[in-house]
Amino acid sequence: MSANGYNALDRLIALFSKLPGIGKKSAGRIAYYILDSNPSLAQALAKELESIHQLIRRCSICGGFTEADPCMVCTDSNRDKSVICVIENAQDLRIIEEGREFRGMYHVLGGLIAPLEGVSPANLSIDKLIKRLNGVKEIILALNPTIEGDTTALYLQKVLKEYPIEISRLASGMPVGGNIEYIDKLTLSRSFRGRVKI
Amino acid sequence: MSANGYNALDRLIALFSKLPGIGKKSAGRIAYYILDSNPSLAQALAKELESIHQLIRRCSICGGFTEADPCMVCTDSNRDKSVICVIENAQDLRIIEEGREFRGMYHVLGGLIAPLEGVSPANLSIDKLIKRLNGVKEIILALNPTIEGDTTALYLQKVLKEYPIEISRLASGMPVGGNIEYIDKLTLSRSFRGRVKI
Repeated sequence: MSANGYNALDRLIALFSKLPGIGKKSAGRIAYYILDSNPSLAQALAKELESIHQLIRRCSICGGFTEADPCMVCTDSNRDKSVICVIENAQDLRIIEEGREFRGMYHVLGGLIAPLEGVSPANLSIDKLIKRLNGVKEIILALNPTIEGDTTALYLQKVLKEYPIEISRLASGMPVGGNIEYIDKLTLSRSFRGRVKI
Repeated sequence: MSANGYNALDRLIALFSKLPGIGKKSAGRIAYYILDSNPSLAQALAKELESIHQLIRRCSICGGFTEADPCMVCTDSNRDKSVICVIENAQDLRIIEEGREFRGMYHVLGGLIAPLEGVSPANLSIDKLIKRLNGVKEIILALNPTIEGDTTALYLQKVLKEYPIEISRLASGMPVGGNIEYIDKLTLSRSFRGRVKI
């Protein structure tokens, strides 16, 4: 038992502070909140966490998270199979789906090329993407406008140029509602280069 | 199953977003992080949450959280039993203990008087505090310098004035490292009224 007699609580706080965006102070606040709440909250959370890895797996086609394999996007006959949207991770799939703009297929890379972090093209799901190109007319690279995203987009462009497929990338520029005064130089420069005729 | 085939994931995200300081976006990020991580993380978290309410209970003397009742503070013979530090909740006990400044006893009120939220003195652990006053020489009110904290301090002062006990309250003023330029008027005013001779 720890000096304060808080062993189980310390373990819970340590685990919560491993989660993204949760520091030691927030983890403490969360743990105390759970202790102060009806035990049903802790029980419900425990139950979902216990089974989450059994219930959710990766879709064998696109690599997104799903309860049934292949996932509901890959098996949806109403979606446009001639367009594949290439994304970094499964969470991006969810965010794009929530936008209800895109009605094609997805391909999750599982990361971005980052030599300093030891992520090379071989670590990404690129071979699997190549095997899906039959009948595909367009590939949209929906990668973050960061150094890693740019590097990965450039690499994919090189790999895909030998196929008769149109390759596009999400527009980069000022966010809607943004203010020129507060925008960084690089974004402003991209907004100029990517300017749209009206 | 939901439209995206994400039922279990949606449930997990909904539960995480119930926790303090975690919005819907953070909850999504956390859930995906857990799915992307080794299953041992989810299992460890599930195990701790499953047992936390059995392992941690309230100390029958001070009201803090503890694995053994009475808690290690209340049973520590090296601590000064003549001073009780009155705090709002059990988390404050942990924070004050981490400061290693205070070596007396604690009393957790379980909230602050807030008529608009329906919290009256009867909802707080005040009767229990009165029963602990035998042999006590000083009570330190370590309550937040907010309207609710001030109201509660005033009420306790009134209740306790018939006992031969010194009552004090934590100093309120500028935080160490703070800047007069950025301090709010009320805090500045309190800093003046509470000025210390040097």
